[in-house]
Amino acid sequence: MSFLENRPYDELTVGDHASVSHLVTERDLVLFASVSGDVNPVHLDEEFAAATPFKGRIAHGMLSGALISAAIACELPGPGSIYIGQELSFLRPVRLGDELRIELEILEKLPKNRVRIATRVLNQEGKKAVDGVATVMAPTEKISVQRPELPLVTF
Amino acid sequence: MSFLENRPYDELTVGDHASVSHLVTERDLVLFASVSGDVNPVHLDEEFAAATPFKGRIAHGMLSGALISAAIACELPGPGSIYIGQELSFLRPVRLGDELRIELEILEKLPKNRVRIATRVLNQEGKKAVDGVATVMAPTEKISVQRPELPLVTF
Repeated sequence: MSFLENRPYDELTVGDHASVSHLVTERDLVLFASVSGDVNPVHLDEEFAAATPFKGRIAHGMLSGALISAAIACELPGPGSIYIGQELSFLRPVRLGDELRIELEILEKLPKNRVRIATRVLNQEGKKAVDGVATVMAPTEKISVQRPELPLVTF
Repeated sequence: MSFLENRPYDELTVGDHASVSHLVTERDLVLFASVSGDVNPVHLDEEFAAATPFKGRIAHGMLSGALISAAIACELPGPGSIYIGQELSFLRPVRLGDELRIELEILEKLPKNRVRIATRVLNQEGKKAVDGVATVMAPTEKISVQRPELPLVTF
């Protein structure tokens, strides 16, 4: 059984960091298209995408936003965090098969339990695909919650 | 058969707007949890969520980001747009059953085919759940592409 644990505001220090890896697969592109409604063929149709400047299918930019938000919610600060804001710069396309590394680093502690967090998504070459800063209200209580089982999603 | 059509840079005028409606359902929360990896029980477990300050399950904040990104990619400017950046402020929780309205409005035309777009998500009471600004490289060519069929996603 797996648990999600948080790091409350009082335990956070500037420079604290966390990272998560994520392999980009067909499943990501189909599920993100399905949940967002963005069915652009540059994400879904290899033949169409091959004729674009990207020369092949790319992931939705906001998939990286989703991965960043999940890293904040599950890792740093973790459960009980309240998302206040997010700035994102999309610097490079993300492609099928990319092995992403989502990196978080506490930049600043603010009043009222708020923190600013550097949020970066790097590809397998170590190049930044997405850069940004999140503002989060960190939890005040230490909590550890059982990781819910997701229903099996198939397509 | 349905098509996605864009509005190229030369056709865009400050004040141009578009909106999309979206009913938030169980499916959104499960698919977003699945694709992002954010399985926090505040999104998935009614009993857990009832005991939080939200007093019930809430949608992932970045689900609104996903809906904004889809509106940009499919509606304004539409296919061929390249996402440069997005600022998001999460102002109010979004809940199951909320009827969201994603609103886009061209704020400014910048050099190099770029535009700044106001991006807002309102709930059924007309209150802002999310506010923000996107920066997008608009397409230069008018295109109309067949809307791809998504594989059926079930859970």
